[in-house]
Amino acid sequence: MPPRTRTLADLGEEALIERIARRAGRVSARDWRLGIGDDAAVLKPRVGSDLVFSVDAQVEGVHFRFGRETPRTVGRRALIVNLSDLAAMGASPVGCLLSLAAPSDLPLRIFDAMLAGLIAESERYRCPLVGGNLTRAEHCSLHVTVVGRVPAGRALRRGQLRAGDELYVTGVLGAAALARHRADRDGTRLTRVAVPRLDTGIRLARSRRTTGCIDLSDGLATDLAHLLDGSGLGAQIELEALPVPRGFARECQDLGLDPDRLSVAGGEDYELLFARRASRNGKGSTALSSQMGVRVHRIGHVTARSGIHGLPPGRVAGHHF
Amino acid sequence: MPPRTRTLADLGEEALIERIARRAGRVSARDWRLGIGDDAAVLKPRVGSDLVFSVDAQVEGVHFRFGRETPRTVGRRALIVNLSDLAAMGASPVGCLLSLAAPSDLPLRIFDAMLAGLIAESERYRCPLVGGNLTRAEHCSLHVTVVGRVPAGRALRRGQLRAGDELYVTGVLGAAALARHRADRDGTRLTRVAVPRLDTGIRLARSRRTTGCIDLSDGLATDLAHLLDGSGLGAQIELEALPVPRGFARECQDLGLDPDRLSVAGGEDYELLFARRASRNGKGSTALSSQMGVRVHRIGHVTARSGIHGLPPGRVAGHHF
Repeated sequence: MPPRTRTLADLGEEALIERIARRAGRVSARDWRLGIGDDAAVLKPRVGSDLVFSVDAQVEGVHFRFGRETPRTVGRRALIVNLSDLAAMGASPVGCLLSLAAPSDLPLRIFDAMLAGLIAESERYRCPLVGGNLTRAEHCSLHVTVVGRVPAGRALRRGQLRAGDELYVTGVLGAAALARHRADRDGTRLTRVAVPRLDTGIRLARSRRTTGCIDLSDGLATDLAHLLDGSGLGAQIELEALPVPRGFARECQDLGLDPDRLSVAGGEDYELLFARRASRNGKGSTALSSQMGVRVHRIGHVTARSGIHGLPPGRVAGHHF
Repeated sequence: MPPRTRTLADLGEEALIERIARRAGRVSARDWRLGIGDDAAVLKPRVGSDLVFSVDAQVEGVHFRFGRETPRTVGRRALIVNLSDLAAMGASPVGCLLSLAAPSDLPLRIFDAMLAGLIAESERYRCPLVGGNLTRAEHCSLHVTVVGRVPAGRALRRGQLRAGDELYVTGVLGAAALARHRADRDGTRLTRVAVPRLDTGIRLARSRRTTGCIDLSDGLATDLAHLLDGSGLGAQIELEALPVPRGFARECQDLGLDPDRLSVAGGEDYELLFARRASRNGKGSTALSSQMGVRVHRIGHVTARSGIHGLPPGRVAGHHF
């Protein structure tokens, strides 16, 4: 008889919580008086800093499937998508909390791999797991709350935009969507996880010329609309200026995909889209890349006229609930 | 033809998020630079205060069923269980974030009622909804993160216990379990929600004699074991000293329930269990009740010998995942 797969039900809630606490490790005493293990985590705020909070979720069957992503990737991504929100505010990570729901017949090795993925990223980005909750549910879901820190009053808020501001993106667009399509074709599991642009976010928050910033989770078309929300302004995009991965057009062709659509609406790139006051003696993209610590490309500008122009037609913005 | 029920799918994600933001209202500018509507919420910490974080979840089919609780009760409880964790730390509420998962065919009126319940409690306890996330899922779940504030270094931590410390509980035990059983018998929907003991938590944190505190979510037996965790100490409980609601024994008898079992293991009372240094000229329960702003009862004491004594036998502690 083959050995039976151990599941969450074999350990029970208390043992699983202890397992999480043990793996999460100790938290820095400089920031935290208490991490996991009491009714709540306790943070010592620093004078001169604001704190930034964001929550995001990864739901089985909606954001991931264990057949499509490895469990480790699921855990890594659950934190990364949140760190990307901190980056978009110009904040540094301070800690995170995980509310995990999982079926009682979930194999323990999947639970362990998800947890290992999340904790690996939490160590990489110094964002310790300081608390959480574990509950039974029919499907897996990971709800992560992140806490970040930013110099007082300097968080990258939306709504400082003016007509004429230049629009930039970090990195390249469409890489995440391309990787998804490639894995689907090859029948391999996705292990790709975005890099949250934390360092660039911090640099953007330091620059007085930054007038807005958002991270690209849903795709340029949707997230640009969010950036403009409530401003009454619009944007002119230069489609040919969108940075894409090397060999992108050819790979898209191989897969029967429209490259423009992928770079504009592919989603999950987690690059930063930001706006800067234009200036006569403005830096070129190369000098700005060096200032921002990552390759950036100017992709258009903010217009007094509302609406987004220069993107391919068709329903690319918004998504169905 | 009867009018078709409007569901979440009819509005779409953006409209639903706007609906939440509109109902959440404005946040106090004293604490928050930004509430809902950007990539993240931004808090101005106060000098001399620590911040406290906790997360808890309510999952459909596990913690609630719409046939058993009203949607408004579900929303109220999702916040209350978290506020109870703040109370157990001696912290005051500062704000909350909601990660909501819901099926796209959920009737809009259920969504609205849940939200109304959560926001009503957030206003009552001055714990504004400052951010959140909305995602599709097969079943409803509400994952709430709360942020609280406590004078620096004064959070009610576990692990200060000594043998001889006196154990107290606020309010009465078994009321929540009794209400559940009564509703089941009568076929009525539960509308009862606990009162988080925030004020008492703050008073306990001010008293140097407090040596430990926990909120009673799972029941006295389980949560007392948590309070003692890692201390090597035990407890002697005086079963006849446990405070129960008026007419409890008779009502239990009517329902064919064991009153001791209900008060010890019923769960969801969200009263505080706390330990105090014994003193020769110690106050009686009546004077202490007046100091703590709520009726408290001495139910036993901490013992050098480990293990919990005086509770009815049988498996009352721990629960299955």
